[in-house]
Amino acid sequence: NHSSFLRLTDSVFKILITTDNHVGYAEDDPVRGGDSFEAFEEVLKIAEAEAVDFILLGGDLFDKAQPSRHAMYEVMRLLRKYCMGTGEPAFSVVSDMATNFHSSFGKANMADANLRVRIPVFSIHGNHDDPVGGSNLAALDILAMAGLVNYFGKSPSVEDITVSPVLLQKGSSKLALYGLGNIRDERLNRAFSSQRVKCLRPREDADSWFNLFVLHQNRVNHSPKNCIHEEQLDDFIDLVFWGHEHEALIEPVKSAVRNFCITQPGSTVATSLCAAETRPKGVGILRICGDKFNIQRVNLASVRPFLIDDYALRAAPETVNIKSETAVAAHLADIVEDMLVRVAKEFPPPPSGESKLPLLRLRVDSTGGETCNPRRFGQAFVNRVANPGEILLFQKPRRNPRAQHVTKALDP
Amino acid sequence: NHSSFLRLTDSVFKILITTDNHVGYAEDDPVRGGDSFEAFEEVLKIAEAEAVDFILLGGDLFDKAQPSRHAMYEVMRLLRKYCMGTGEPAFSVVSDMATNFHSSFGKANMADANLRVRIPVFSIHGNHDDPVGGSNLAALDILAMAGLVNYFGKSPSVEDITVSPVLLQKGSSKLALYGLGNIRDERLNRAFSSQRVKCLRPREDADSWFNLFVLHQNRVNHSPKNCIHEEQLDDFIDLVFWGHEHEALIEPVKSAVRNFCITQPGSTVATSLCAAETRPKGVGILRICGDKFNIQRVNLASVRPFLIDDYALRAAPETVNIKSETAVAAHLADIVEDMLVRVAKEFPPPPSGESKLPLLRLRVDSTGGETCNPRRFGQAFVNRVANPGEILLFQKPRRNPRAQHVTKALDP
Ligand SMILES: [Mn+2]
Ligand SMILES: [Mn+2]
Ligand SMILES: [Mn+2]
Ligand SMILES: [Mn+2]
Repeated sequence: NHSSFLRLTDSVFKILITTDNHVGYAEDDPVRGGDSFEAFEEVLKIAEAEAVDFILLGGDLFDKAQPSRHAMYEVMRLLRKYCMGTGEPAFSVVSDMATNFHSSFGKANMADANLRVRIPVFSIHGNHDDPVGGSNLAALDILAMAGLVNYFGKSPSVEDITVSPVLLQKGSSKLALYGLGNIRDERLNRAFSSQRVKCLRPREDADSWFNLFVLHQNRVNHSPKNCIHEEQLDDFIDLVFWGHEHEALIEPVKSAVRNFCITQPGSTVATSLCAAETRPKGVGILRICGDKFNIQRVNLASVRPFLIDDYALRAAPETVNIKSETAVAAHLADIVEDMLVRVAKEFPPPPSGESKLPLLRLRVDSTGGETCNPRRFGQAFVNRVANPGEILLFQKPRRNPRAQHVTKALDP
Repeated sequence: NHSSFLRLTDSVFKILITTDNHVGYAEDDPVRGGDSFEAFEEVLKIAEAEAVDFILLGGDLFDKAQPSRHAMYEVMRLLRKYCMGTGEPAFSVVSDMATNFHSSFGKANMADANLRVRIPVFSIHGNHDDPVGGSNLAALDILAMAGLVNYFGKSPSVEDITVSPVLLQKGSSKLALYGLGNIRDERLNRAFSSQRVKCLRPREDADSWFNLFVLHQNRVNHSPKNCIHEEQLDDFIDLVFWGHEHEALIEPVKSAVRNFCITQPGSTVATSLCAAETRPKGVGILRICGDKFNIQRVNLASVRPFLIDDYALRAAPETVNIKSETAVAAHLADIVEDMLVRVAKEFPPPPSGESKLPLLRLRVDSTGGETCNPRRFGQAFVNRVANPGEILLFQKPRRNPRAQHVTKALDP
């Protein structure tokens, strides 16, 4: 029973967990340009409202390894606005900070007397915002040097990997935070398989720590070497925070092969028009007390409505001549109109403010019929749909229709 | 008499003035890659040792509008190291900071209770680090949002320009700091000529302020429309800090046409192999008390030795066959050897540490003789000269030899 373990908060870590914020995603899009920024700001507002001890990011904070100046500036502005201020954190870092944090003078921002930090942010990098170039610096190194983020989990080697936990203490609760920024899956898989990934344990009372592991890798994939398997992770871990996968599976699930639970917060903005991204987006409020934890899900209100439908042309009424491009386009337009009606029902406008234009995707099996030009088709839906030119996706018929359901987003 | 006006420091502004630090210049060069960083760090060390009230930068802090991640990271690291810390500034900003500082929540970093700033940095932008892209954000906006720099003098319009001073008070001294970040010279010249540049005066006791104007424009040029003329600047100004020109002319000189003095600190790293850049590099320590000021020059010790010489092949001894490429190369190599001897004499090694490889430039008038390949020539000087492949510059003979002396650096 995860949910009834305490009232007193002195020894309860309260942590906002979120990942794959992809700030800067589609930032030049006239309709969706602000979505990733808005979602990230909502995340920070939740952290503020919930008065969490800290925020833990699971990678892909930025959509690009070289964020635009606007994206960098906005992230800095938001972090400075929400995370700096009075109200000293009620926990402390007790590990060697020079080992944990390579930028920022080897200390967490909350430990720098020149900065007044209200909500520290701890982050690993993802595959979208990993270190680049000769300097091997990530955008997170810039944020760390600005005193806005505590960047950890950057392994100096991708062959021999030693994960030194950030050790945090709040009252009597002790949290060992293991972080491993994204490494190419095949390579990390190989390192795990050949015992070249070593998670250090605290020297004293190793069993008295709650062990939280945050990583940013493929969780499921068709090729077994192209993802990390649960059994590759150490069994002493209590909870795994899985970044990179964009579907929000925030409620912790027990691993079938290991003793730990897994939470997968998912992205805060849809970066691909696939089914997994249509699920409600959210963040987790993770509470840890001693060896117990629970996770409360908080859905994001700022997320743009998003509906996916499938349609096979051969199922069209006989009155529709599916051999005519014009007739196909008109028929599909009717279906999209129906989707708009459904969107209005399923996504009522927020109490304050107006509804956002929805993302729609209609996947059309055109077997036996004609296709039409998705971009031209979309012109009728400008100002009604957020992605007018990309509503329609004509698909080749699949031999195994079930395969469709496990299709992964490209490049999450 | 500028130098004997006081002992008490309570009402004396002590300001380090420096410009054109060009951090990141030639950062990939195997020999000179660190020069711009080292010079900028030396500037900050001087500011620390002199315990100045603040640092005033005249633009071109960065060599590129899009600095490399390494350059951005290093500048942030250095600013955080030297400019954050205990020891509250003894002056205050009394103007409307939201008007002065567009980034950083409309306040100077020293006025942000979440930051502990020891030496505030105020900066305008130059032509090398001006705002870019649709967001019109400069690298300085990033530093400002990080709380490391107070970026001012960014005019929202390049047609109608209003300069609102940053008003600073220390004891009884009142300093109005006017800043104008670089604008294309032709355009700014036009704006000045048509009275579309307006410097606002403080409402009360306008005459009780010391007026310091910092700009980053061509000071001298062949075309009268391609620079700013002293008579275009307001006569109420007391001192002009002229950025952009790389020659260090730090000692203030009285304008011939206006009542103000001009100081031109010059760059802290040589970015072109021209005569103006061979002069010793330095910074100014500007003291202002009431309506008086003086400037003390502090030379930089970290600057790489740099020698320029001119040679005309037709002056070679008759034993040298200047029609033979091989003979020319051998002869010029002897001359470069002589230059190396002179460098050793003129630039004795610093008390601690070893000498740096020198920059050498030999400008050769090849009239009547052969040239040789400068890159191949330089191979004999690798590990002895910082710029082996660029020592030799073969020049076309000039009609007017005096023109050579006013040759401007390209793109300072
Ligand atoms: Mn990812
Ligand atoms: Mn992602
Ligand atoms: Mn310049
Ligand atoms: Mn310059």
